[in-house]
Amino acid sequence: MAALVALAAGPLLPAAEFTVLGFTSERAAAQLKLESEYDKHLDAADLRTWLERMSAEPNHVGAPHNKANAEFTLELFKAWGWDARIETFMVMYPTPKKMFLEMTGPVKFTAKLHEPAIPEDRTSGVTKDALPPYHGYGADGDVSGELVYVNRGMPDDYKELAHHGISVKGKIVIARYGGGWRGLKPKLAYEHGAIGCIVYSDPADDGYSTGDVYPKGGSRPSDGVQRGSVADMPVYPGDPTTPGYGSTPDAKHLPISEAKTILKIPVMPISYADAQPLLAALDGPVAPANWRGALPITYHMGPGGAKVHLTIESDWKLTPCYDVIAFMRGSELPDEWLMRGNHRDGWVFGAWDPLSGHVAMMAEAKAIGALVKTGWKPKRTLVYCSWDGEETGLLGSTEWGETHAEELSKKAVLYINSDTNTRGFLGAAGSHSLQTFVSEIAASVRDPQTGVSVLERLRAKILVDAAKKGAEGDEKADAKFAAANPGLPLGALGSGSDFTPFLQHLGITTLSLEYGGEDMQAGVYHSIYDSFDHYVRFGDPQFAYGVALAQTVGRAMMRLADADVLPMRFVDFSNAVERYSDEVHKLADAMRESTAQNSRLLDAKAYQLAADPTLTYVSPERDAAVPFLNFTALDNSTLRLKSSALACDAAFTKAMAAGAQLTAAQRTELDALMSGLEHSLTNDAGLPGREWFKHMIYAPGLLTGYGVKTLPGIREAIEKRDWSVAEHFVIVAGTSLDDYRDRLDKIAKILEAAATKN
Amino acid sequence: MAALVALAAGPLLPAAEFTVLGFTSERAAAQLKLESEYDKHLDAADLRTWLERMSAEPNHVGAPHNKANAEFTLELFKAWGWDARIETFMVMYPTPKKMFLEMTGPVKFTAKLHEPAIPEDRTSGVTKDALPPYHGYGADGDVSGELVYVNRGMPDDYKELAHHGISVKGKIVIARYGGGWRGLKPKLAYEHGAIGCIVYSDPADDGYSTGDVYPKGGSRPSDGVQRGSVADMPVYPGDPTTPGYGSTPDAKHLPISEAKTILKIPVMPISYADAQPLLAALDGPVAPANWRGALPITYHMGPGGAKVHLTIESDWKLTPCYDVIAFMRGSELPDEWLMRGNHRDGWVFGAWDPLSGHVAMMAEAKAIGALVKTGWKPKRTLVYCSWDGEETGLLGSTEWGETHAEELSKKAVLYINSDTNTRGFLGAAGSHSLQTFVSEIAASVRDPQTGVSVLERLRAKILVDAAKKGAEGDEKADAKFAAANPGLPLGALGSGSDFTPFLQHLGITTLSLEYGGEDMQAGVYHSIYDSFDHYVRFGDPQFAYGVALAQTVGRAMMRLADADVLPMRFVDFSNAVERYSDEVHKLADAMRESTAQNSRLLDAKAYQLAADPTLTYVSPERDAAVPFLNFTALDNSTLRLKSSALACDAAFTKAMAAGAQLTAAQRTELDALMSGLEHSLTNDAGLPGREWFKHMIYAPGLLTGYGVKTLPGIREAIEKRDWSVAEHFVIVAGTSLDDYRDRLDKIAKILEAAATKN
Repeated sequence: MAALVALAAGPLLPAAEFTVLGFTSERAAAQLKLESEYDKHLDAADLRTWLERMSAEPNHVGAPHNKANAEFTLELFKAWGWDARIETFMVMYPTPKKMFLEMTGPVKFTAKLHEPAIPEDRTSGVTKDALPPYHGYGADGDVSGELVYVNRGMPDDYKELAHHGISVKGKIVIARYGGGWRGLKPKLAYEHGAIGCIVYSDPADDGYSTGDVYPKGGSRPSDGVQRGSVADMPVYPGDPTTPGYGSTPDAKHLPISEAKTILKIPVMPISYADAQPLLAALDGPVAPANWRGALPITYHMGPGGAKVHLTIESDWKLTPCYDVIAFMRGSELPDEWLMRGNHRDGWVFGAWDPLSGHVAMMAEAKAIGALVKTGWKPKRTLVYCSWDGEETGLLGSTEWGETHAEELSKKAVLYINSDTNTRGFLGAAGSHSLQTFVSEIAASVRDPQTGVSVLERLRAKILVDAAKKGAEGDEKADAKFAAANPGLPLGALGSGSDFTPFLQHLGITTLSLEYGGEDMQAGVYHSIYDSFDHYVRFGDPQFAYGVALAQTVGRAMMRLADADVLPMRFVDFSNAVERYSDEVHKLADAMRESTAQNSRLLDAKAYQLAADPTLTYVSPERDAAVPFLNFTALDNSTLRLKSSALACDAAFTKAMAAGAQLTAAQRTELDALMSGLEHSLTNDAGLPGREWFKHMIYAPGLLTGYGVKTLPGIREAIEKRDWSVAEHFVIVAGTSLDDYRDRLDKIAKILEAAATKN
Repeated sequence: MAALVALAAGPLLPAAEFTVLGFTSERAAAQLKLESEYDKHLDAADLRTWLERMSAEPNHVGAPHNKANAEFTLELFKAWGWDARIETFMVMYPTPKKMFLEMTGPVKFTAKLHEPAIPEDRTSGVTKDALPPYHGYGADGDVSGELVYVNRGMPDDYKELAHHGISVKGKIVIARYGGGWRGLKPKLAYEHGAIGCIVYSDPADDGYSTGDVYPKGGSRPSDGVQRGSVADMPVYPGDPTTPGYGSTPDAKHLPISEAKTILKIPVMPISYADAQPLLAALDGPVAPANWRGALPITYHMGPGGAKVHLTIESDWKLTPCYDVIAFMRGSELPDEWLMRGNHRDGWVFGAWDPLSGHVAMMAEAKAIGALVKTGWKPKRTLVYCSWDGEETGLLGSTEWGETHAEELSKKAVLYINSDTNTRGFLGAAGSHSLQTFVSEIAASVRDPQTGVSVLERLRAKILVDAAKKGAEGDEKADAKFAAANPGLPLGALGSGSDFTPFLQHLGITTLSLEYGGEDMQAGVYHSIYDSFDHYVRFGDPQFAYGVALAQTVGRAMMRLADADVLPMRFVDFSNAVERYSDEVHKLADAMRESTAQNSRLLDAKAYQLAADPTLTYVSPERDAAVPFLNFTALDNSTLRLKSSALACDAAFTKAMAAGAQLTAAQRTELDALMSGLEHSLTNDAGLPGREWFKHMIYAPGLLTGYGVKTLPGIREAIEKRDWSVAEHFVIVAGTSLDDYRDRLDKIAKILEAAATKN
């Protein structure tokens, strides 16, 4: 019984011991020994060397150093014993030819649109191959107009503008970053009639207000600019001109004008040095308190005052996108693929984003290769993926996933993603059937700074944060979970990195694992200053968390590869579904109440009476009353799911205790059932207006972009007040959950058999 | 039945009709007619003329124009038919002789400490008799030391500093205004070992962040400074050298060193222009997010970096303080005094604070005088008071109240206060037995901007704010009240103006009534720019709310003067007590839970694990577990109070319906019982460490200064974790409530008799 990993928890945490989930007690000890061996092959010096080399030159899609990095990665994987290759896609990849922004009145001002070199940052002076700050997949255009400040440019901000009687029709809007995904800012601006969009980084969010600016500290300097994609990725990610299919070299591309995810108005990112004169020149009402940033000005909403002229011309061309794909073939179940990916392309030097995660993945591959050289072989196949083109729209992962969809539907067991990785706490999100598994992994990895397990440290953080701040929403749910359970609460995945095609399009069980939270990434995010020099001062100077990530994901990959039974716990999933179901019920109830209240206030003219008559105030619209929705199908499916999940988990425990005596055929059938579970949560018709997104439990929000919406069909329809659609998705989600449960029942049956056999 | 004032409410508000509370239906119509007559004598032009004249020169205590304003007020009152006189007190009143602040390192900087003239503001160039920005009753001193930024300088801020391992011992602190009363900042700094204190106005709170600065807009310009008293008024207000007794010309004064409310360290107010170089020079940890203001710098906590040198020398001398007291003798009950006051002294020109309220009070006195000249006479005596010396410590009102304490204990029925008055919403607070009465008054005054009653407008504001923001605490309680009741929720009074000696020291039923909330006062508060020119642009340009205040308070005074039965409703009071009692129960429960949670987190070393190891972090102290407190006496007294209040209100209604047939003796007895009600809520031993504060239901918080603490003996003892003191005050408050109830039972008996007589 050496197979217990003690969870080093104080009396705060319910005492708990984890087994090595999926391994019989006889085999668990060997697995733990293997992991110790694995750890010996991890070397922080490797990560440092690779990071410095790979971030030495601009490495966006199409940059020479991007290709060099792909080849470097390829060669290393091969040298480590992997069967590696480069897969090339030809993606529509606009780059700026001309960018110009000036204020034409009341005073003349030409924006700098340039990030100067900083002597303390060696690569900031490397201009060869570097692109200027820009937004990928905005429209080309040459527009002039009055400026309107729209705060974060999110739906509530347009409601606020409407209260002030302000329209952005025919205007150019300026929004600050934050509050929602950047691509929504120009999209919503366009939908409200704006002809152009400027997005700037307010010093309140990542500049001097948050810390000393680079190079004294890590925060965003006045000329720093956040680049980024603005493609309408909540509709579909990947190459906008090849929706739903791979941009293989011979693929047919839609014309730009037909690509739904390319925006219709020009949009440009700027620094706060460039933004300040524009904002200072604005007239119109004083912006409400929650619209004010940290610039030393009075924020006005406009219009009036500033007039601006904005020009963007891009080179729209097909560009090669290089994915490096490496296989370590499974000895027993070679057609079961455990996939692992991190992107490799940056906006400029990309030391933080993405190379800090990429070098950890390389360390895993090196260590696994070393173990294989000493005789170990994974039972299931490992597939390591170095993605290109993530920054502009998850290009490399999406095009690869779309290209190999059919093969993946047969072979993929799971996908694990990471991206930027740095000092701090384990961030874990994904399919909830893996929550206990991830908790176990986290209990077995030592936090480099404190010496306790990364699980214990994360749990301390969740509980202390909640105690300090009084948690709300997800944080509150997490704290409640941590107070009552020994493990960690897995987050739900929206979008923002390469897991999206696997989880939400293909329905593959997915995890995102990375460390962070004690760093200063925000100050250089997507700027020229995202550099090796910045990372080793303000990120993970010892690369200790790079090693921790390699330990974490490496353990996960090896346990998944060799598990007797795939390590899934289904009550974790049914609990998550129960919570999401409860949330959508409450959402409808809260909307019903607030809608009724709004009507009462309108009846009483209360908004007008409460408003300052010397200022313009337009009362909110009156919404139709919110009916009671028929949630029965969801409620019953959730109920049934729970009972099947309980039975299945019990059968799993019994089977493991009995040594999991499975025939080869049973194991194949069991693995197939488990691998297909996540797919049963998809629906081929997808979500309204975005059929590419097929997962009925997790999706990025149409109006949040990165942020997740759980039970998205139901939740977003309620938010849109589209009651019949909401009720339709109650049925669809219920059916998905029923399919999931049917599989659970079959899994339980096999496990019961495995438990009774000996 | 013409005596109904319809409450002009939409379907949002429960339909309600108010009678003229305290008047039989036969007499109510005449009273309403009298009020119409009264309104005719109110003229906005008067208010404007008086305000411009009285704010033309500096008018602080001791300034020639202060005396001139007293004489001007006296002459007008006399001319309007009042029996008026000036009562002079000799108060210890320090004024600055020398003020100096410099940063000696890392760079040299000398603070300007001066508010320059602004051409658009005529009085800002008047320097004759003006005092520079300073804090009243700080210590003299000449100190040098390292600077530490302490955010608002409130108790939680020192806890945060402790977490960072920062002590202010031997240091000079700089705090921003806000978060609690200004006098607490140097007091707490001293208690934590600081040797000097600087307080500045951050632009986030009243400067450019809140609106365009004066003169373009109304917000605080970069050189504007908030003056103010820092006397330790939560211990006792008034002249620090005559605690508890009047500073009559022959009074004996304590030496400065023995005056408990004079501070022990020098303290100086500065502008944000002067603060910015000091804050920018600070080293030490980056300040937490909620410590950051709107200056374009990274806020650090210090120490290290800035060293400063601070000098203050004052002229400590006795100065005359002139109260104008005017009587309009009652025709039937001359020894029942209805008092009304507003202070007259400003920090410099004082157009907003206090003269905007003072001129409304003058308008009332003029109109009442005019009615008297046409034959009406109040049945009870009206006493109008123009207080001096409020700004430095409620000097005029406190010394007068202390001097006349004995007479007031026999004669005072009620005191109504106002202070700054401007455009917006009715702000009403005070003794809850007057809540229905004030609601009625508010239903009868028309809002100048919207045409509905000021009650309806206020209710709309309460409900809309709660709907918009999601109300918390008092706002939530107010919204709940407004949704369920036709009237307005009266606030509880802490301190901050001249009502304090009457309510909290003498136990006299008290109201504070004034308009505001749609203005830009904050930007010039206690600065040289608090001027007529600013007020007529950013305050109440038409003086319409000055007239509204005169209507509001005038109605209240006249109804109280002539009521058949004093218009009190006791269930309003018992409901308030019930709420406060519920709050202190919940406070103890929440502390019990958070203390236990804190212990669990400490046991698990969770604070250290959650903290960034590269930064200093000191875990919070472990507090002893919170026991269950014996609230029985309070619970039972509250229960009994409610039943007596219900019975008394019912008897009141019956008596009024029956024509309130009272003999003269019964009326005198009834009025005496009602007038003494509030006094029964006092306890002569007062609150811990501050016996001057005798009210057991309402007090300014020892650690909030202006902000109220209800059931203060209990609540503050719980907050201090002084369980035996808390339980002691449970008994004391219970006894007070029992005394109150005994009076209610006697009142009910008389009213029952009055109801059955005819």
